[in-house]
Amino acid sequence: MATVEPGGWEAAFDDLKGSLGGAEPRFALLSGMVGSRSGWREAHYLACPVSLSDLVDELCWVEPGAIAIVPGICMLRDGFADVMRGEETQVLGAVAAGLVPRDCFVCLPGTHTKWVVVRDGQVAQFRTVMTGELFAMLQAGGTLAAQASGPVARGPDFDAGVDRGLDSGSPTADMFAVRAHALLETGQIGNGAAYLSGLLIGADLRAGLAMGEHRTVEIVGRSDLAALYSRAIARAARKTRTVDGGMAAVAGLKHLAELAE
Amino acid sequence: MATVEPGGWEAAFDDLKGSLGGAEPRFALLSGMVGSRSGWREAHYLACPVSLSDLVDELCWVEPGAIAIVPGICMLRDGFADVMRGEETQVLGAVAAGLVPRDCFVCLPGTHTKWVVVRDGQVAQFRTVMTGELFAMLQAGGTLAAQASGPVARGPDFDAGVDRGLDSGSPTADMFAVRAHALLETGQIGNGAAYLSGLLIGADLRAGLAMGEHRTVEIVGRSDLAALYSRAIARAARKTRTVDGGMAAVAGLKHLAELAE
Repeated sequence: MATVEPGGWEAAFDDLKGSLGGAEPRFALLSGMVGSRSGWREAHYLACPVSLSDLVDELCWVEPGAIAIVPGICMLRDGFADVMRGEETQVLGAVAAGLVPRDCFVCLPGTHTKWVVVRDGQVAQFRTVMTGELFAMLQAGGTLAAQASGPVARGPDFDAGVDRGLDSGSPTADMFAVRAHALLETGQIGNGAAYLSGLLIGADLRAGLAMGEHRTVEIVGRSDLAALYSRAIARAARKTRTVDGGMAAVAGLKHLAELAE
Repeated sequence: MATVEPGGWEAAFDDLKGSLGGAEPRFALLSGMVGSRSGWREAHYLACPVSLSDLVDELCWVEPGAIAIVPGICMLRDGFADVMRGEETQVLGAVAAGLVPRDCFVCLPGTHTKWVVVRDGQVAQFRTVMTGELFAMLQAGGTLAAQASGPVARGPDFDAGVDRGLDSGSPTADMFAVRAHALLETGQIGNGAAYLSGLLIGADLRAGLAMGEHRTVEIVGRSDLAALYSRAIARAARKTRTVDGGMAAVAGLKHLAELAE
C-alpha cells in the first residue's frame, strides 16, 4: 500500500512474481490492504464468526483462476464496528498449522494492534487499537517528540508506562507526564520513548485483555513488537506464546490455497 | 512561541508595544510560553498551592523594573508531575476579578486542556490533558484523517463520542470506530470529526472531572471550545459557567501589576 502507485498493482505483482525465480504457480493468493478500497481490487468484509473455508468461498478473483484476494473480516454488533484485512489470514493460518490452539486469544501488535478471540478454529470477535500509529505520530512531532523520539528500551520506564496505561484509563492525560517530568528535571522518566510506548501499550492491553479471560495470549507478529507486548502482558499477570507473523501469513495462504484447489 | 524566531523576542515585544499607540506603561508583565525554555527568558515553576501574590514575589525580570515574566506553576506529588504557563494568570485573574468563586473547579480547554482546583483563591492542584494536540494530529494525517478532517458539529455524533469517551477508558481503541463505520458504510457516524472530537473531549472529562466533586465547572477559554466543553460536561451531569479566556488573562495581568507596584 505504501509503495504502490494507483494503477501500479499489476506491475508490482509481476515484479514480485519475477523475483520468485521463474516458478509458475497455478494461481496466486493475496491478502491484506491489497484488497482495500485503495488497493488493487476491493474485496468485501465477511462478518464474524469466520473460518478459513468462509474466506475461500468469498475469494475476490482479480484474474479468474489466476489471481485472487482474500476478503477482510468485520464486526458489527450493538453499534460497535471494526474491520481487519490480512490479520485474519495470519490468525486462521496459525490455527490451521497448529501454531496456536483452535480455541485461543491472539494479539497482533502493530500500527493497528488487533486482539482476536478464536473459537473452534474460527475468528469469533476482535478489536483494533491504534497504538502504533499514535506512537509514530507522537514521535514524529508535537510536544512529546523531544523526549519520546529515541529508541524504546525494555526497562523500568517502559514498565512504569505499562502499569499506568493498564490502570488509569486516561492515556491522553497521562502522556503529558513525559514532558512535565523532563521540564521539572525530576529524573523519574529516563527514557521518554519507553514510557510513552509502555503507556500506549498498557492502554492497548486495557482494551484488548477485556475481551478474553484466557490465561495465555498468543502473540502473532514481528519479534521486536512481540517482545514489548510479551513483557507488558506479563505485567497484567497473563502468559504469552509468540508466533512469527510472517510464518503465520504463509501458513494461512498455504491452507487457503489447498482449500481453493 | 509559534511566530517568534529565536532571539526575536525583544523586537516582537517592541512591535507589540508600538501597536499600543504610544502608551508608555511603567512596566510590562508577560505570561505564558514567553517564559518557557524556548521563550524570551526561562521563568521557573512555583509548586502548588500558588496565589497571585506568590506569582508576584517570583516575577522573572527581563529588564529590571521594566519588563517581567510571570512564573509558571507545577505539581509534583507521589511521582505525578504536571506544569502550566499562562493558565495560572487566567485562573487567578478570574478569581481576583470575581468572575469565578474563590473556591471552584476550572476547565481551560485547548491544545493542552487544564483542569484546575481552586481553594481559598489559590491554585491547589491541576491536571493537563493533550486533547487539542491529539485531535489536530489525527485531523492532519493518518488513518482517521479522511473521515475526521472536517468541521466539528455540535450534534448527535459529538454527543455519542462524548458518552463513549466518558464511559470507556480506551480512547486509543474507540477512535478506530470512525474508520470502521465509514468502511462498512453503516451510516452510524455521519460527522467523523464530531465523533472523534467528542471521544477525545469525553476522555478529557474522564480524567479532569475525577479531580473535583464540584457541581459546577467554570470554563475559561475561547467561545467555540467553551461551547463544545459545556455541551460535553452537561452529559456528565454537571453544570458550567463560561468566562472569556482573554478577559481572564487581562484580569490576571492587571491584578498582578497592581500587586507588583
